[in-house]
Amino acid sequence: MILDAARAQFSERGYEKASVRSIAKAAGVDSALVHHYFGTKEQVFAAAVEVAFAPAFQAPGAVEAGPPEELGERLTRFILGVWENPETRAPLLAIVRSAVNNETAAAVFRDLVTGQVLSRIARGLDLPDAELRAGLAAAQLVGTAMLRYVIKVEPLASVDLEQIVARVAPVVQGHLTADRTRTGRPGTADQAR
Amino acid sequence: MILDAARAQFSERGYEKASVRSIAKAAGVDSALVHHYFGTKEQVFAAAVEVAFAPAFQAPGAVEAGPPEELGERLTRFILGVWENPETRAPLLAIVRSAVNNETAAAVFRDLVTGQVLSRIARGLDLPDAELRAGLAAAQLVGTAMLRYVIKVEPLASVDLEQIVARVAPVVQGHLTADRTRTGRPGTADQAR
Repeated sequence: MILDAARAQFSERGYEKASVRSIAKAAGVDSALVHHYFGTKEQVFAAAVEVAFAPAFQAPGAVEAGPPEELGERLTRFILGVWENPETRAPLLAIVRSAVNNETAAAVFRDLVTGQVLSRIARGLDLPDAELRAGLAAAQLVGTAMLRYVIKVEPLASVDLEQIVARVAPVVQGHLTADRTRTGRPGTADQAR
Repeated sequence: MILDAARAQFSERGYEKASVRSIAKAAGVDSALVHHYFGTKEQVFAAAVEVAFAPAFQAPGAVEAGPPEELGERLTRFILGVWENPETRAPLLAIVRSAVNNETAAAVFRDLVTGQVLSRIARGLDLPDAELRAGLAAAQLVGTAMLRYVIKVEPLASVDLEQIVARVAPVVQGHLTADRTRTGRPGTADQAR
């Protein structure tokens, strides 16, 4: 399938060196066919990324289902679950690599994360600073994934997943829903800065 | 200077494509000289990374100086400050790219972060889980930097730095020093999960 070949090419060669031609060759089809169905390299990349994560992103369990006070834990389990699973980790790592190395790939990744994850979370929050809250919650999760699965800093890389969830989920929840009108300090309601 | 040439090569060509030879050529010296002073490509990379950040990492203000209850804010300002400054952002981005793309570069980066930052923080905490706390605090900062400066997710990318510090510093502080014996929830002392 063309998008499987595309993902493999982006993963092996990186965004910059992969081409519509090399993807077509790997898929055993003509370049014209890839252009016809997907368009430019950027569009092939966006399609490959979306197909890789659409099933996971569209699962309602990740965001919408369940009580709002457990949103932090659901999101934490969802994001770290994608990284724990070797089948989804490999394509995700390929995407992160492309996004860190190339501005165009970064833009595709940014649009996907914003459109499929952050704005869904923000919509559910119904707060004026919802997008910023969603971004900072995502930052805790992205950084945890980077240090645990990519850079492999110890003891974060080896510790049991439940220990991570127990410490990260409340922080994610705090970013998303903590009352910020009384204090500058998310996660506490009794301590002014 | 050899290490400036090395940083430029790693930055432009990436870790895998840069070589001791290309670094020597860019510095206008013989490869043998580079080998003599620094050793292998991995060792040249480690030296270039260390030289780029040693002055910042060794500034006591980042970690040790000041009251422990303000450690979260000091660290947040220090790490985000390195990213805000275009002069330190470029080499840091080059290192992050190399570390995300290559296992050897990841190991060099991991050792530097662990040795120069995380273990210094952990030593100051004097808690049995100090390393894990330092890792999760770093995760919030690494993720914030990735989304703000590399992937450029809005509104996180454009919002005033002080808004970020006001929300991130208490979370970093919570990871580092919150009492975890009473509840599973860092940053609160009155709410069991």
